[in-house]
Amino acid sequence: MAEKKKDRNNTIDPAALEVLAKTKDSGIESAYDRYVNMQPQCQYGNAGVCCSICLQGPCRITKKASKGICGATPYTIVARNLLRHALGGTACHSDHGLHITMVMKEIADGHGGDYTVTDSGKLKRVAEKIGVSVDGRSDQEVLKDVVGVAMEDFSRLEKGKYCTWLEKTVIPARMEKNLDCNIAPNSIHKTITESMAQTHMGMDADPVNLVFQSLKTALCDYVGMHIATDLSDILFGTPTPVVSEANMGVLEEKMVNIALHGHNPILSEMVVKAAREMQDEAKAAGAEGIKCMGICCTGNEVLMRQGVPPLTNFLSQELAIMTGAVDAMVVDVQCIMPGVQTVAECFHTKIITTIPNVKIPSSYYVDFDETRALETGREIVRIAIEAFKERDASKVSIPQIKNKVVAGFSLEAFEELLAAVNPDAPYKVITDAIDSGELAGVCLFAGCNNLKVKHDENHSTIAKELAKNNVLIVATGCAAGTYAKLGLLNSDAVEQYAGDGLKAFIKRLDDANKGKLQESLPLIFHMGSCVDNTRAYDLCTEMAKQMEMDIPKVPFVASAPEAMSEKAVSIGSWFVTLGVPVHVGVIPPIPGSPLVVGIALQIAQDVYGGYFMWEEDPMVASKMLLDALGERTWKLRVHKMAAEKYETAISPTW
Amino acid sequence: MAEKKKDRNNTIDPAALEVLAKTKDSGIESAYDRYVNMQPQCQYGNAGVCCSICLQGPCRITKKASKGICGATPYTIVARNLLRHALGGTACHSDHGLHITMVMKEIADGHGGDYTVTDSGKLKRVAEKIGVSVDGRSDQEVLKDVVGVAMEDFSRLEKGKYCTWLEKTVIPARMEKNLDCNIAPNSIHKTITESMAQTHMGMDADPVNLVFQSLKTALCDYVGMHIATDLSDILFGTPTPVVSEANMGVLEEKMVNIALHGHNPILSEMVVKAAREMQDEAKAAGAEGIKCMGICCTGNEVLMRQGVPPLTNFLSQELAIMTGAVDAMVVDVQCIMPGVQTVAECFHTKIITTIPNVKIPSSYYVDFDETRALETGREIVRIAIEAFKERDASKVSIPQIKNKVVAGFSLEAFEELLAAVNPDAPYKVITDAIDSGELAGVCLFAGCNNLKVKHDENHSTIAKELAKNNVLIVATGCAAGTYAKLGLLNSDAVEQYAGDGLKAFIKRLDDANKGKLQESLPLIFHMGSCVDNTRAYDLCTEMAKQMEMDIPKVPFVASAPEAMSEKAVSIGSWFVTLGVPVHVGVIPPIPGSPLVVGIALQIAQDVYGGYFMWEEDPMVASKMLLDALGERTWKLRVHKMAAEKYETAISPTW
Repeated sequence: MAEKKKDRNNTIDPAALEVLAKTKDSGIESAYDRYVNMQPQCQYGNAGVCCSICLQGPCRITKKASKGICGATPYTIVARNLLRHALGGTACHSDHGLHITMVMKEIADGHGGDYTVTDSGKLKRVAEKIGVSVDGRSDQEVLKDVVGVAMEDFSRLEKGKYCTWLEKTVIPARMEKNLDCNIAPNSIHKTITESMAQTHMGMDADPVNLVFQSLKTALCDYVGMHIATDLSDILFGTPTPVVSEANMGVLEEKMVNIALHGHNPILSEMVVKAAREMQDEAKAAGAEGIKCMGICCTGNEVLMRQGVPPLTNFLSQELAIMTGAVDAMVVDVQCIMPGVQTVAECFHTKIITTIPNVKIPSSYYVDFDETRALETGREIVRIAIEAFKERDASKVSIPQIKNKVVAGFSLEAFEELLAAVNPDAPYKVITDAIDSGELAGVCLFAGCNNLKVKHDENHSTIAKELAKNNVLIVATGCAAGTYAKLGLLNSDAVEQYAGDGLKAFIKRLDDANKGKLQESLPLIFHMGSCVDNTRAYDLCTEMAKQMEMDIPKVPFVASAPEAMSEKAVSIGSWFVTLGVPVHVGVIPPIPGSPLVVGIALQIAQDVYGGYFMWEEDPMVASKMLLDALGERTWKLRVHKMAAEKYETAISPTW
Repeated sequence: MAEKKKDRNNTIDPAALEVLAKTKDSGIESAYDRYVNMQPQCQYGNAGVCCSICLQGPCRITKKASKGICGATPYTIVARNLLRHALGGTACHSDHGLHITMVMKEIADGHGGDYTVTDSGKLKRVAEKIGVSVDGRSDQEVLKDVVGVAMEDFSRLEKGKYCTWLEKTVIPARMEKNLDCNIAPNSIHKTITESMAQTHMGMDADPVNLVFQSLKTALCDYVGMHIATDLSDILFGTPTPVVSEANMGVLEEKMVNIALHGHNPILSEMVVKAAREMQDEAKAAGAEGIKCMGICCTGNEVLMRQGVPPLTNFLSQELAIMTGAVDAMVVDVQCIMPGVQTVAECFHTKIITTIPNVKIPSSYYVDFDETRALETGREIVRIAIEAFKERDASKVSIPQIKNKVVAGFSLEAFEELLAAVNPDAPYKVITDAIDSGELAGVCLFAGCNNLKVKHDENHSTIAKELAKNNVLIVATGCAAGTYAKLGLLNSDAVEQYAGDGLKAFIKRLDDANKGKLQESLPLIFHMGSCVDNTRAYDLCTEMAKQMEMDIPKVPFVASAPEAMSEKAVSIGSWFVTLGVPVHVGVIPPIPGSPLVVGIALQIAQDVYGGYFMWEEDPMVASKMLLDALGERTWKLRVHKMAAEKYETAISPTW
């Protein structure tokens, strides 16, 4: 273990390994080096028993000091830190969702500028879902009301009314559970403020109360994310299957390479559009054209809707620059390592920050003004073209590694695949396959990379193991990034890794959709960026509706094999709250409180049906996920047998 | 220094020292013991270069690791932690303000229950200040609109409109400065969410941006606090001079002693009311009656409006229980050491938590339901009466130490004192005294206790030194708690500590108000709880208006000699932003970034006129505060001389 932490080549991505090898003696540092330098990490912090919430601290729990100066016990400290983590993630998604909401408001008010409603069908579906009337009304009228409901979900102050986006998208049993546990949020912003206050010195000392508040906060995360996804689809279109390729081999030696990094499609869609218009400008500068490519979840956004190839995922963002072939890295929000600027300074690469509250010293800052969005996109592309002229060919070294990618599986797109088999009850195609034993269940892979486990290894190993055991797999975020890079998002991987049941299932979908798809279906279905995890939960909800069961009976699990950001904490928490077992591949800073550990791993299941599993070893984790699915399918079989035996109809169990 | 940190008797409060001495070998632990056990504190944390924001961490800056794993430099880490601190404080005050706002909304909607508008005059003044029409309208109509404006200040999502409570209460020049620097908040909740997002992994890396956002967040703190104070005055009355006494000697051996601890008057006012009604129940239980007393800022709230005696301040809250004479400690929000429960378990004392998001395991929880507020107050008093019956007389040991207190100086009450000297321009009484050299200026003492400096010593030493040098002193929070306990809030202290100028000034006020006051005026004017710091800033604003100068020219300084909570960070930050030099008596966790230190101590002055001074030594700190005042009065003299020389009128300089 100690040895592993000293190994700079802490990745299984062959492109990343190639760059790491080539830059070994260059003195150019990346996260892989800094992780080694940071060892050993603080064990108080790892255990979660370090508190720096007041100026009398920092306090840390030791043999000599069993409590903080104020008397806070380890469980209070751990639970309070956990709530602040859930808060950080929720605030990010909320900010993202609000950004899109306010752009939509401009459209509704007739000042959309370069933005317009692209997907009128999705607008209607969303409106109907949240209870906004669509009959005989124009898109603009409907949009105005949809935006109004979203704004209320952000800002409501009154008690007694709850976030519409939660109430209307989960099954009734889940909302009842939220109300029973008093964790249904009135609004996102009010809850965030209340949670932040609750973690202040001398506020809540009760770990159970703090954990429940983390779950309430996490439900706000769900709301903010769902709003972000729904409105992004209305704005830019709901993804449909798309073919592309991924990993550093997508860099083109003779083109202007623009890496789009971050999480929000608001800007990146405009850069992609501008780049497509400006090919001639690039040619005038001596390039063969302009190529956009993605990193992290901005990458996922533009892959899903525009087929833009993913360059790499979170952990290797700096390595992409080290190829010497990235002319500009345009970043918006979240997961942008400050380290990119330092690396860029060793090359001609321009780091372009665009959002007022996300700046990096020494980087270019182009203020992203929504009222002149496309023009801002052009300015950014122009900077990239200028940078291309300064590119030093001697420093360019592109790993020739890339894989075919079939992505674009929004829930709507996925439903269409299923509907080709069973038009009346599309999700019955899945539940029947589980019922017959063809599929072992469904697993979502989500989340980040984290050097505490080998880059991409957990994502890859666990997914392959589950595929072998006939689990239908959907993926988002940097998990999907791994699969894109490593060639798991195409039909070759089906042949190579799927068990017989899964193979037959995918073949059935393929056959039913013959002629409609450009390419055969992949092993893993890419559902979008990490903000799109609600697409996967909506799939779980549709399965529950089909089965007429509450979520804790649905053979659906989730895994964040390389969780890193606070968003992973909030996302994982709402999945658990909404009834899903969640594996996390790194140990969060909680072990310092056995009580909080017990709540997360065990007690949560009694209350919500969902619970956490923490396991770093990918093979052990695979077993845990399969067992969790096995337990649910076993219960279903018992349920069915009992119903047959006693000749009672299976009535909804919520 | 190392020796000092090992001394458990880390206080100058004689009552606290007596309790500490008596409990020396009892095995009962308090913060004084835990502070000693916690030494040495983590130096990474002290410097602010520990980051635990993502699950890849914790990271700490060392010789070997000059950046976090993500590449965050010390300035990013320090600035990000600072912003989270400002956020914690702001969220607390916002939550407090919103609580009161929503109670007022019930009154406006006709469902106030036990709550009603007590101070119709204040309602009108507040309405007029924030632009709500009062002409020919009922209190209820006006209140509805005032509450509406407050709710908007909490929840507004749109750009382009700013918090009314900021815009309408500061002088125009300050609002212009806020707009110029792009730190004027649209609303509290939106800003809190945006700030929390900004501190997420891979968001803002720019320390200057992060510091500006801390200031924007701090301005939300100002807004939340100002709303809380204004609405509390409308609800319970604007404080007027009141006489009481303070320190542990206020405990009565033969009475039911109820300690009211926390920050919010919403509940405590009801407990005080219930206690006054229920004297007979106490007598039936064998007591001579019921006595309420205050701790921390709930104590200040009920002192200011009801004359309830302060029992002690923040740091010695556990020691109060160790007297064996506290029957119930009723707590609401903020600064409640979890340690009180453990101490209470060694006695008969009942700790009663009352707020859903502030619980302590093993304590009594009485859910404070505003719709049956007085009844809840009665339930609480009844628990105290029952506890009295279990009191063990052999464990009772009350330090016979108390001092006379004259408090209740809301800005309105203070203005009335001044108006007795100059009815046309009350604040000219102060500015003239500064002009003539009688007063050296005005200083606010605010904030907490912190064992990093000796309990109460910094508060006391600096105040005495400034009084000797003719500084007019106002105080809030646990600073005011120190002065109450140590006998500085009465007229004897004027004789003992005031310089000749200050003595003459106070005497002039005393003479002019003869017959109106029950007692002569004190050395230090108690303006309320820490949420009431806007009263002091409003005084500064009134001085600015009188002088027709912007705040950076007003001889007004602030000091938090024993700052501890995140609220101190947010309060200090808005004072600086709004033009006031602020001394802080403990070093905040910032030294790890010389850049952020430079911004706080120096650059802030260039931008805002206000700036921080960090100094633990009380004598050095006194000198710094006097120098800051001296610099401003010197500039005023130069300004005046120039005006006279060139025979130009002094026109407003904003």
